[in-house]
Amino acid sequence: MMTLLSNAKLKAFAKLHDKKYRDEEGLFLAEGNRAVAEILARPNAADILTALVVRNGRSFEFSANFVNKTFTLPESEFNRLANTDAPQDVIAVCRQPVWLLSDVLNARASKKKSLAVLLNGLQDAGNVGTIVRTAAWFGADMILANADTADFFNPKAVRSSAGSLFAVPLIRSRQFLQDTALLKQRGYIICASALDGEAVTTKTLPAKLGLVIGNEGRGVSDGVLKASDKRLAISGDASAVESLNAAVAAGIFMSMYRQAHSY
Amino acid sequence: MMTLLSNAKLKAFAKLHDKKYRDEEGLFLAEGNRAVAEILARPNAADILTALVVRNGRSFEFSANFVNKTFTLPESEFNRLANTDAPQDVIAVCRQPVWLLSDVLNARASKKKSLAVLLNGLQDAGNVGTIVRTAAWFGADMILANADTADFFNPKAVRSSAGSLFAVPLIRSRQFLQDTALLKQRGYIICASALDGEAVTTKTLPAKLGLVIGNEGRGVSDGVLKASDKRLAISGDASAVESLNAAVAAGIFMSMYRQAHSY
Repeated sequence: MMTLLSNAKLKAFAKLHDKKYRDEEGLFLAEGNRAVAEILARPNAADILTALVVRNGRSFEFSANFVNKTFTLPESEFNRLANTDAPQDVIAVCRQPVWLLSDVLNARASKKKSLAVLLNGLQDAGNVGTIVRTAAWFGADMILANADTADFFNPKAVRSSAGSLFAVPLIRSRQFLQDTALLKQRGYIICASALDGEAVTTKTLPAKLGLVIGNEGRGVSDGVLKASDKRLAISGDASAVESLNAAVAAGIFMSMYRQAHSY
Repeated sequence: MMTLLSNAKLKAFAKLHDKKYRDEEGLFLAEGNRAVAEILARPNAADILTALVVRNGRSFEFSANFVNKTFTLPESEFNRLANTDAPQDVIAVCRQPVWLLSDVLNARASKKKSLAVLLNGLQDAGNVGTIVRTAAWFGADMILANADTADFFNPKAVRSSAGSLFAVPLIRSRQFLQDTALLKQRGYIICASALDGEAVTTKTLPAKLGLVIGNEGRGVSDGVLKASDKRLAISGDASAVESLNAAVAAGIFMSMYRQAHSY
């Protein structure tokens, strides 16, 4: 017999659609069978998972390990908790991972090669999630997001991350310029993606790279550009289209970094 | 004085949200000030544009060139025609570009380097539009989409393409395997993106490349894999996340192609 999710818990979980409540509770919702399976395959899954909510008593291979945390909801209530128009059969209520920049830097202090991704004002949560997914694929050491970047734990970002939110240290930086300066102190060369930058090649990317990706329309802010060591651009045909999508550009930089410093 | 859009035209244009009507009429809607500006900056803009619909009589720099085709709508009707929740101030009704594969191939027959992108079952219209944008940036010669790939002219694809739908020949292929065979006859080496493929490097990418990108979940279909010359993969950490996003992977392949065969 599966336990029915109480009305009080349903209400509390549904509030997690709002960033304010996500931050207050330190929780977020992950939807979709594949994304949830990826999260629950992580070694620390038992710590991450607060509750698993399934539609109409369905069972999953992975839910067997979390029987005590698994609750069911009838169709209509399940759909209320889901964020998509066509939700799948499972929603995980997860604890947000908490990382401190100083800890992450200390743990990587002896590394000669390291990739940090800095997000400076990205508005589109889908782009943020896609960049997390790409950074996980390429083994980036951390992602820093400034205060006006879309939330890592926004439902759209969670969906785009394809279950990779626990695979890379994610840091919300309240003092982005100071944190950028700290990275520089620790040997990172800060390279900002900018349309008017030097053409990037595998040779121009340093082994300790702080890659800054800016806002979809305005690019990297003036203050952060000033704090950067280099501006880099991906060569292309600007007469055909103004720019690349931010997540695609980030992916190309990360792929080049991997080519340059294969690890 | 700007002409008010007639009710009959409003109804006809609003139907273009459905693929069926888009195909019947050979038209589509492009929204957003920037995307429309990019389309109308093209040399053949006068042929492309059927009508320009603006909110509440607003005027734009670019609309001055198309006075006879510019119509206004009051707020509420404008919002009905728009596809997004927070529409901007202009919607262009455009003719779909029509390209024949044989013409495109003949026009490029003498090129020693050529990039063709083949879409095999991509479900997400946002990915399709992003791939068009990226292909435009990297100067690809054509994009072929098979019948179960999301429509190039779907509103989400149009938005993601950022005004680049006229910058690359777009071909909807009803006979994808035959068209793939035709590309091979014309000297293209067909390389399918596949997780179990050989690790791609700038050296493995041929100068005449037919790059196949598959469905977001299932990848490239068995039939198309069989018709391909190579399977290529982007190296990464599959223990962190299952795969890259399809549009990001496509962007990385295209960027590597450009590095390998700079043009």
